[in-house]
Amino acid sequence: MIHHDGSALHVPDQAPVLGTDVDVVLRTSPGVETVHVRSLVDGEPRFSEAVPERRGDELWWRAAVPVHNPVTPYRFLVGDRWYSAAGLADHEVSDATDFRLVAHPAPPAWIRDACVYQIFPDRFARSAAYAERALPSWAVPCGWDAPVVGRGELTGRQVYGGDLDGIIGRLDHIQSLGADTVYLTPFFPAGSNHRYDASTFDAVDPLLGGDAALARLADALHARGMRLIGDITTNHTGDGHEWFLDPAAQDRYYRSPDGGYAAWLGVPSLPKLNWNSTGLRKAFADPLQRWLEHLDGWRVDVANMTGRHGTDDLTHEVSRLVARAVRDVRPDAMLVAEHSHSAGSDLDVDGWQGTMNYAGFTRPLWTWLRAADLALPDFLGVPGGVPARGGDAAVRSMRSAAAGMSWRSWTHSWTALGTHDTARIRTVVGDPDRVEVAAGLLATLPGVPMVFAGDELGLTGAWGEEARRTMPWHDEPRWHRPTLARYRALLGLRRAHPALRHGGLRLEHADADTIAFWRETTSERLLVVARRAPGAPLHVAGLESAVNLYGGAAEVPTDGPTFQVWSVPVRMATGGNSD
Amino acid sequence: MIHHDGSALHVPDQAPVLGTDVDVVLRTSPGVETVHVRSLVDGEPRFSEAVPERRGDELWWRAAVPVHNPVTPYRFLVGDRWYSAAGLADHEVSDATDFRLVAHPAPPAWIRDACVYQIFPDRFARSAAYAERALPSWAVPCGWDAPVVGRGELTGRQVYGGDLDGIIGRLDHIQSLGADTVYLTPFFPAGSNHRYDASTFDAVDPLLGGDAALARLADALHARGMRLIGDITTNHTGDGHEWFLDPAAQDRYYRSPDGGYAAWLGVPSLPKLNWNSTGLRKAFADPLQRWLEHLDGWRVDVANMTGRHGTDDLTHEVSRLVARAVRDVRPDAMLVAEHSHSAGSDLDVDGWQGTMNYAGFTRPLWTWLRAADLALPDFLGVPGGVPARGGDAAVRSMRSAAAGMSWRSWTHSWTALGTHDTARIRTVVGDPDRVEVAAGLLATLPGVPMVFAGDELGLTGAWGEEARRTMPWHDEPRWHRPTLARYRALLGLRRAHPALRHGGLRLEHADADTIAFWRETTSERLLVVARRAPGAPLHVAGLESAVNLYGGAAEVPTDGPTFQVWSVPVRMATGGNSD
Repeated sequence: MIHHDGSALHVPDQAPVLGTDVDVVLRTSPGVETVHVRSLVDGEPRFSEAVPERRGDELWWRAAVPVHNPVTPYRFLVGDRWYSAAGLADHEVSDATDFRLVAHPAPPAWIRDACVYQIFPDRFARSAAYAERALPSWAVPCGWDAPVVGRGELTGRQVYGGDLDGIIGRLDHIQSLGADTVYLTPFFPAGSNHRYDASTFDAVDPLLGGDAALARLADALHARGMRLIGDITTNHTGDGHEWFLDPAAQDRYYRSPDGGYAAWLGVPSLPKLNWNSTGLRKAFADPLQRWLEHLDGWRVDVANMTGRHGTDDLTHEVSRLVARAVRDVRPDAMLVAEHSHSAGSDLDVDGWQGTMNYAGFTRPLWTWLRAADLALPDFLGVPGGVPARGGDAAVRSMRSAAAGMSWRSWTHSWTALGTHDTARIRTVVGDPDRVEVAAGLLATLPGVPMVFAGDELGLTGAWGEEARRTMPWHDEPRWHRPTLARYRALLGLRRAHPALRHGGLRLEHADADTIAFWRETTSERLLVVARRAPGAPLHVAGLESAVNLYGGAAEVPTDGPTFQVWSVPVRMATGGNSD
Repeated sequence: MIHHDGSALHVPDQAPVLGTDVDVVLRTSPGVETVHVRSLVDGEPRFSEAVPERRGDELWWRAAVPVHNPVTPYRFLVGDRWYSAAGLADHEVSDATDFRLVAHPAPPAWIRDACVYQIFPDRFARSAAYAERALPSWAVPCGWDAPVVGRGELTGRQVYGGDLDGIIGRLDHIQSLGADTVYLTPFFPAGSNHRYDASTFDAVDPLLGGDAALARLADALHARGMRLIGDITTNHTGDGHEWFLDPAAQDRYYRSPDGGYAAWLGVPSLPKLNWNSTGLRKAFADPLQRWLEHLDGWRVDVANMTGRHGTDDLTHEVSRLVARAVRDVRPDAMLVAEHSHSAGSDLDVDGWQGTMNYAGFTRPLWTWLRAADLALPDFLGVPGGVPARGGDAAVRSMRSAAAGMSWRSWTHSWTALGTHDTARIRTVVGDPDRVEVAAGLLATLPGVPMVFAGDELGLTGAWGEEARRTMPWHDEPRWHRPTLARYRALLGLRRAHPALRHGGLRLEHADADTIAFWRETTSERLLVVARRAPGAPLHVAGLESAVNLYGGAAEVPTDGPTFQVWSVPVRMATGGNSD
């Protein structure tokens, strides 16, 4: 056994201050004779010897790491092997997978406890006001139960009429699920139902109820102790945006003298913002800050491309600008970035607090839990469909992504089983019992869980646009009641147990069909076992005195799919650190 | 079989131009059905399908990668597995180990053909002028054969009197070895024999013969078609440096109001330069450029710390400033950076062309070839001595370092078996036959080989300062003649065979005692087999028609240590690409 992660159990000081030393703890089996910590100080390795302490049947090795730089990479030398965030290695390893201490300002504390519910406003719920609204010329009105046209000329134009006041009417549902933070895809006026082609950042789309409706929704959420997150595009606007049409603001976009311009993936309606423009930098701060009167944070669209264009790579700079603008008015705001692939190199730079963790959560889970007969043409953009892989490979995928960022960034990233840009989890895994396993991992792995509205009812959809189904509020026979009950129970479990939100993550076992891991704090030890299919008996020491918290089994079942969580008594005195 | 690397065999365009597409080739066994290339364009993955072509018993998959950014990460999707610079993976992998196309200005062509010979001037050779020279007050004169005091008050003060004219007298030796580039550790006046504590960058130390001697040495080298590389400290100067003493240049160092200052690893005689200073930026360009009248490039000391101090991280910016200053006067100059650990994150930023590849060459080789009874207290700074590891682990170490940088940076990095900062290879491996294996790998692996003067004579030394022995020119019985002959033969082999300088690197086999690999171009295929000890028979297809170029064996020997190189006929037509 060997383990370290960035949780408070192993790094008691979760907000390291420059100029101080921070203790880090490595746990090993007895028999290990020497442990050193290697950290980088101004780019140079420095070693300090760790001191062991016996705790139960483990050695806890403690050493101090000097926090001399905003980000301090560190790893352990165990005998003559290296232990880094990539695991134990019998060879020399790159610094790229070192653990990282981050001394940048810490994100607000509430985020680690949050559970996000994603709403695509047009499809969630209508208010009574819908009937009186005039539609813009691009819109094609649809009845609530009309099928979505997932691919075609109508895709972006279908308007079902969900609005912000409609959401207010459904807060009981959201809250009963265990979610406490609503994330809205864009609410700015635009030329499509997804609104990623904003025509202004200065108003809420009247189609959604306008500015006043946003204020009402925010107030209603805040009155319940809940929060609201917006969605903003730092990479592009719509080609109908007031900046794009303003002759005095031409420098805010990448334009060529012949009138041409750069656009997101070449889509002409989405001209790309040029962050070299000081005018843009000033102008953008305004909507970022203004809406934080109502919002509690932002999700940043296409963060992976923002600021990148040919020889320009202003991405980190933009992320810092945005973070500073946000922090100046709302130090307690959430700021999360969209990356569909590995995000590590864009994090820990005092910008985004985390990413949408497709690479380290959604993708690994899909490969493990996908239905045998799943026939998606691609895997979130990767040709060839969703690979079928074992649980051990899924764990390696997660570790590869996790090793590229700090524990702080990892735990502040959103985990999602699917979003408005992907297939629905019910379609991916096929079987409601596998949805339970997926939702179980969503509720028990590190990160901020995000539920795409409708997943909890078992809605289906084979790709993003097709998955943007309306909520079948008035058609309860279409609700998959067991799935809803499981989501409620699992997210409730997360809220009830600090170890699921703040604990370390230590792997117990992974094979083709089984993933088992520990979530641990000083005062709580939870064992999570996920099986996608029946498997061999799995014996875990200490389970005989455990209490089953979810799944109902006394020992690890050999049948599957199954999802089980046990609470195991903390065996040993663990000193004064608490999270 | 699956293989790709950045060599011309697999990436015909070795100097990609922004705005073009570049072909990349993946080789696989037959039976692979689909291959895609994934590249990042402005931070977003883009896929293109590769087209196979049968070549002998391999498939050569070709696809175009758009060169849209100065650095383009790319990898292959082979069925549903990823193939990146980290190898083949059955799981999701981070972008950090993608292959990289680099569109920054390419280093001059001569570097890929160079072989460097490192000289620590005080210890290499005296000229007749030595006898007349006055010594500075810090110096303790030593007879040429007096032992070095490796650790103690005298260590930095022992002066043996080697000088630049002394080197001129030994160019036949250097050239006969197969080296064509002399790298001098610092020649600026200083307060120590190592001269990393320069008191000025504007003069050559009179103790070494002064400015005129440098010009004479450079002229003598250039007359032979050889080159000369200097050594400069961008991280610090000596505390006797004219800038440090100049009240008008105080901002060039990190100083506190109380008179304190930051220093390299806290050593007060080495105050750290502050690259926020525009005065420093201007002043530093002068010596960088002026000495390139004679020099053909620079080795940059402590590049890993340069520009890093607390919240400052100006390292990439400094590397670009230095590179631009150098390129402006000498576009054909070499510029290599010192990192004792992984350098990848500091490369491919249009700064250093490569690093001193301790992490990816010296360290792996030491762990593989170390003597059983080696008793060094540390491993290039890592506590616990040099780990004893197998050849397979050594290959993993090399791959881990290589996967963090472009092929260009990898092949422009210096490979060394030891330097003035380390133990001597003869001491590390113990046995002259293992020195041959080490020198063989130096001559046949990618990178710019660097020989620390005296290694070719079998000199010993257990750590850096102790290894700074004088050359026993007049004591030929102390020369290890077989070692010298082997160095000459091996470096001669490198000069004779383009594949050893420009070829791809493809692993054939690695186990505890054996490492075998291919170096390949369109016109040449070389198989290299290194064994540290006797091993099981190794059968390589095609060897029956091969010509042995080094080592004398007809087939892979089962005894060892042994080092063998064969030339194997190119089996298949390989199209129009040539390197």
